[in-house]
Amino acid sequence: MLDRARELDAADPLSGYRDRFDLPDGVIYLDGNSLGALPRATSARMQQVIREEWGEGLIRSWNDADWISAARRVGGKIAPLIGAGPREVVACDSTSVNLFKLIAAALDMRSGRKVILSEPGNFPTDLYMIAGLERQGLAERRLAERDKLIGALDDDVALLLLTQVHYKSGAMHDMAGLTSAAHGAGALVLWDLSHSGGAMPVDLNACHADFAVGCGYKYLNGGPGAPAYAFVAERHHAALHQPLTGWFGHAAPFEFSDDYAPAPGIDRLQCGTSPILGLAALEVGVELIAEIGVDRLFGKSRALSEFFLECLVEQDLKLELVSPQDSAERGSQLSFRHPEAYAICQALIARGVIGDFRDPDILRLGFAPAYLRFEDMAEAARHLAEVLRTGEWERPEFRERAAVT
Amino acid sequence: MLDRARELDAADPLSGYRDRFDLPDGVIYLDGNSLGALPRATSARMQQVIREEWGEGLIRSWNDADWISAARRVGGKIAPLIGAGPREVVACDSTSVNLFKLIAAALDMRSGRKVILSEPGNFPTDLYMIAGLERQGLAERRLAERDKLIGALDDDVALLLLTQVHYKSGAMHDMAGLTSAAHGAGALVLWDLSHSGGAMPVDLNACHADFAVGCGYKYLNGGPGAPAYAFVAERHHAALHQPLTGWFGHAAPFEFSDDYAPAPGIDRLQCGTSPILGLAALEVGVELIAEIGVDRLFGKSRALSEFFLECLVEQDLKLELVSPQDSAERGSQLSFRHPEAYAICQALIARGVIGDFRDPDILRLGFAPAYLRFEDMAEAARHLAEVLRTGEWERPEFRERAAVT
Repeated sequence: MLDRARELDAADPLSGYRDRFDLPDGVIYLDGNSLGALPRATSARMQQVIREEWGEGLIRSWNDADWISAARRVGGKIAPLIGAGPREVVACDSTSVNLFKLIAAALDMRSGRKVILSEPGNFPTDLYMIAGLERQGLAERRLAERDKLIGALDDDVALLLLTQVHYKSGAMHDMAGLTSAAHGAGALVLWDLSHSGGAMPVDLNACHADFAVGCGYKYLNGGPGAPAYAFVAERHHAALHQPLTGWFGHAAPFEFSDDYAPAPGIDRLQCGTSPILGLAALEVGVELIAEIGVDRLFGKSRALSEFFLECLVEQDLKLELVSPQDSAERGSQLSFRHPEAYAICQALIARGVIGDFRDPDILRLGFAPAYLRFEDMAEAARHLAEVLRTGEWERPEFRERAAVT
Repeated sequence: MLDRARELDAADPLSGYRDRFDLPDGVIYLDGNSLGALPRATSARMQQVIREEWGEGLIRSWNDADWISAARRVGGKIAPLIGAGPREVVACDSTSVNLFKLIAAALDMRSGRKVILSEPGNFPTDLYMIAGLERQGLAERRLAERDKLIGALDDDVALLLLTQVHYKSGAMHDMAGLTSAAHGAGALVLWDLSHSGGAMPVDLNACHADFAVGCGYKYLNGGPGAPAYAFVAERHHAALHQPLTGWFGHAAPFEFSDDYAPAPGIDRLQCGTSPILGLAALEVGVELIAEIGVDRLFGKSRALSEFFLECLVEQDLKLELVSPQDSAERGSQLSFRHPEAYAICQALIARGVIGDFRDPDILRLGFAPAYLRFEDMAEAARHLAEVLRTGEWERPEFRERAAVT
């Protein structure tokens, strides 16, 4: 398969983009869905921000280097990747904090309704962010399995909160259909794009989505703990009240008045001072993904994952696939169930094949298409087959759990 | 005065620390209370985090570079600067977001009480963060002038929320006295240390403070929009419920369970994934301030501001000082009222003397003691005298307002 992989790489129009990333030697990185790789341009840009903008420019850079617009500018560059208008997205805070703002905003817009509907097994922070509002007496969490979500929509539901591509299985929701069903029941919809934004075409406005959030450090390659982003459809801007009413979301922050007045438009989603270093790194990652284009990226990620499955067949490996078989119905990942998934993942990492484990029994392999080669697929499949055939995962060092799994 | 200034500099035991910062030539930087200067060590450390930890280590760095403990580790290094125990401080989110967490936590702990008491003219975001909770029906804002605060404490007050050193005037509150008065009325106290932490000794535990927040990008020199910090006295940890219940505040975040359970201790104040780049820069700044020591820093900042006032006398300049006359009662700044403060500030900036303007009529000069010289005081006073005497501030370009003032 290695020969065929090399032919596919030679014919791949995106193959040149691998060199735009700084990847370590001897590593096949199948975890870009957890932390994206380092764009080559990031390091120099960060030196410029640190030495010139901060060191030389000091406080003047809020104007001279336009730090003051950074949240809006980076949001505006993310917008076309997710089918949003340029003034509908802002880059700020963490995904979790942005979830809170928008869950609370939905409760404010649908007064009388308290239920936030989601699915069990959604990414934990999406579910957890409801807990604080529940304790405040403002929200009530309702979970329904994915095939029962539409049936669980009633006139108590203020918000349907779902992750478009499931972090564990990679299964993709029908964004247009579920949004329409929720609207039919009078509810709003908040889409978490953490596992889809930057990896595949997302069309929030074509689906009439109300709200969305997403992660800056996965497919957008913004660096560890990068700022996240938030989307609010323009039709909701004027009526939107989110509770994190900080000075960067104020209509006139430098008037220093005692009373809060929300900024017009998407800026009212901002809260504290923009994290300039984090936004600068994120901007580099976003620009690179925008240059490649999400349509081409998704095309390649489908081809990569299909080829990987062929390689497993070639290796005569039978693993339980928990991701959808059809590559059009899943994100840029393949997840397999195995009772020893943790130890297998560690044995692969020791061989330089970095995937990840998700409790309790999932081996998750992400295929970030911007920097992976078909050759990586063939090699990863060979390593996986060898780990399983030799039983090297049984070594005690591979079974000991680290702090972060 | 320049000769005397140079003698004072020669005798100053902190003078060597100026070289630990990267300051631009030809600038006298009197705005470290708005954005701290760049420590010389930051740039190399950031290259290491970006190239080695992110680029080479990739996802493995959550364990191998101990990213997972960054929020707690940096918090632990801030703790001794503010009189807190090592497990009472965490570095995360923005000051605004941390204010929200702790205002809401106080309302949760004092159920039946809804009033958040503060003073008019407190830093805007402190006041604004009450607004979101008011709209949710959870809080009620009450403002009282500083000499009427104690009288405004009654059994409706859940929390007294004050900034220890006023951002505009530099006036310092009596932390011990006000904390005790609030406790006497059954209320909790939240201190914003943004203009005191890292510039002067703060002793939260000696004052029996309940909560505190503070800024990472002023006196801690963490870079533009650096992560902030939050303090909760250990006696409150077990009963603390803050509403931003994200996965990084979970007791077992990598078990990926559907239900939120707060981490034991200060970690429950975390919300989303730690901003690793921002925390790395902040850590460098904190370590440098800790090395110099807040007692020595405050001693020098008092000497600097007293010397600056002497220089003004020498220049025969009579300006209305709105900061306290006694340097023991003010933070590391001097604020002057002048109807043309904005234009004067701009004229000074054009001469390389960077202070700042605070609406509507305050010229604020900060004396960050870690990198300023007595010579800078003499020169700044000379420039200020020349600007006022020549009337050069009257030029139209100095009166045009920028986006960020």
